[in-house]
Amino acid sequence: MPRKHQSEDSILRKIATSSQSSQGQRPGHSVALGIGDDAALFRAKPGHEIILTCDWFLEATHFLRDKHPPDAVGWKCLARALSDVAAMGGTPRCFLLSLALPETHTGRWLDRFLGGLRRASRKFQCRLAGGDTTRRDEILINITVVGEVRARRAALRSGARADDILYVSGRLGEAELGLQILRRSKGRASNKNPLTRKHLYPEPRLALGQWLVKKGLVTAMMDLSDGLSSDVPRLCAASAVGARLEKAKIPQVQTPDVALKYGHDLMQLALHGGDDYELLFTVPPRKAKLLPKSFRGVRLTPIGKITRKRELLVLEENGRARHLIPGGWDPFR
Amino acid sequence: MPRKHQSEDSILRKIATSSQSSQGQRPGHSVALGIGDDAALFRAKPGHEIILTCDWFLEATHFLRDKHPPDAVGWKCLARALSDVAAMGGTPRCFLLSLALPETHTGRWLDRFLGGLRRASRKFQCRLAGGDTTRRDEILINITVVGEVRARRAALRSGARADDILYVSGRLGEAELGLQILRRSKGRASNKNPLTRKHLYPEPRLALGQWLVKKGLVTAMMDLSDGLSSDVPRLCAASAVGARLEKAKIPQVQTPDVALKYGHDLMQLALHGGDDYELLFTVPPRKAKLLPKSFRGVRLTPIGKITRKRELLVLEENGRARHLIPGGWDPFR
Repeated sequence: MPRKHQSEDSILRKIATSSQSSQGQRPGHSVALGIGDDAALFRAKPGHEIILTCDWFLEATHFLRDKHPPDAVGWKCLARALSDVAAMGGTPRCFLLSLALPETHTGRWLDRFLGGLRRASRKFQCRLAGGDTTRRDEILINITVVGEVRARRAALRSGARADDILYVSGRLGEAELGLQILRRSKGRASNKNPLTRKHLYPEPRLALGQWLVKKGLVTAMMDLSDGLSSDVPRLCAASAVGARLEKAKIPQVQTPDVALKYGHDLMQLALHGGDDYELLFTVPPRKAKLLPKSFRGVRLTPIGKITRKRELLVLEENGRARHLIPGGWDPFR
Repeated sequence: MPRKHQSEDSILRKIATSSQSSQGQRPGHSVALGIGDDAALFRAKPGHEIILTCDWFLEATHFLRDKHPPDAVGWKCLARALSDVAAMGGTPRCFLLSLALPETHTGRWLDRFLGGLRRASRKFQCRLAGGDTTRRDEILINITVVGEVRARRAALRSGARADDILYVSGRLGEAELGLQILRRSKGRASNKNPLTRKHLYPEPRLALGQWLVKKGLVTAMMDLSDGLSSDVPRLCAASAVGARLEKAKIPQVQTPDVALKYGHDLMQLALHGGDDYELLFTVPPRKAKLLPKSFRGVRLTPIGKITRKRELLVLEENGRARHLIPGGWDPFR
């Protein structure tokens, strides 16, 4: 049963206890002051820049109260914000949690949410440093992640040059198909299906992003959150270049029977499916041979190249080129 | 008329243009990379700690769409988050804006909101560095502020000691009375009444907080956001001390006739009114003589003292002591 009439302070204490966040000064750790004061204090490493990113995770927009297990909501709200740190090649340090909850959700739901959040926080070594809570009929979450990267080393969207090779990590469209399976299932989702798991428990490509930046292999990088067809144009616009993708090379979902069963085309899923949190990056041709076929079990696939001409084309299997039309997720469309 | 069917990217461009945020590397400024990439990059000053704080500002909970001018919503969402930086004695550097909006509000409302936000951003020298936007039926705002303070110099809540003198800045209850006037007024608020202005356009006490910390005058500090009766217990709990307030000394609203007209008791307003964003701080007795009566036009008033015994008392004008009962704003009550 949910515990009623909890005060804001008692909810904050529950969150602080769950995260085992420090309540005072702890020398040697980057979070010098955690939950419980007006603000958190963070000590940056010398010679490093601080990465700052924030992300909405809202009921009905980003997750469904009756479909998404609270544990997955906790995991995913942090994991997707961490994906932006991965896209810069950075290392996560700490995060702030802003949480608005109905009073009915301050008991068991909150406990399970904090469980998923804690697992992601430990796995990706990103510690809860503070936040804000309030009461609301709908569940609203906002996460701010603070990371670090060596000064002037961050991978930006704006560095792609003509002839660079465009790569993606993983397979595209899996999370979207997972969401479709979830939507049509009765009640809450099972964690057993790898597609729903990819949707519920995305893994930000932190190690890959750090490795690519450390080795100096990438000229530009971003994460794929809204779908390839929406995100490639963003990278190209920031770099003032175009791109030509080869459709046949785009790594798709490996279970065509499942996609078919749910009435989905594999290529449409790969082009327009959101929430994959894979990395999209560009590598100069002379460095491409240094790139392995996979990194820690995640495949790295060249899917096309950057062009001087600011045009976005997809080369069809029949050799014809078509314009790439953004069809990924846009909340204002 | 609101412009319809704007994409997320075009709204981001509008926000970026309004804030005149940098789109690339700008050496010498603490924000190395602003809006337009996966994350922002920030360069910390050597020998400093980074202050991190975030705040909800939600329609119906924190402001009313038909009562609060969009310009005031923009100003206040940033000003109240900056108040947490003031409470640490820090200097604001940059902020992230998470904004969820109905499509009908992406035109004129957004322009005016951004106008108020820009004015606060300039006045308090805190630059927009990034954020996240999405569509939503209700207006939801979350602000993360990043500030700086010299290492190990931040004023915490936990430093108050027995016999320290408890001070507040300004007058308490003004913002609450301003809100009551606003609620009963027809249509949107006028900016002419100083009470509604204090509610709509709070001024975070940044210069005061910085000065108190620089001069080494305070042992503990926090900002008054939920009301004196809720916030004194928080400071005392963090410091493991008690306090004895003198009711007669608490600086009240100076317009008793206005309070009376709206059926409010001045002392109730001063004790329990929220949203004042004044500073509450403790000063060792031997340093109290170094404190001026006012700082840049803001009065500084001793209202009581810290006690070893962990008890919160209010000394009535008749000499009797009563327990201080938290009656400030708590969203979960």
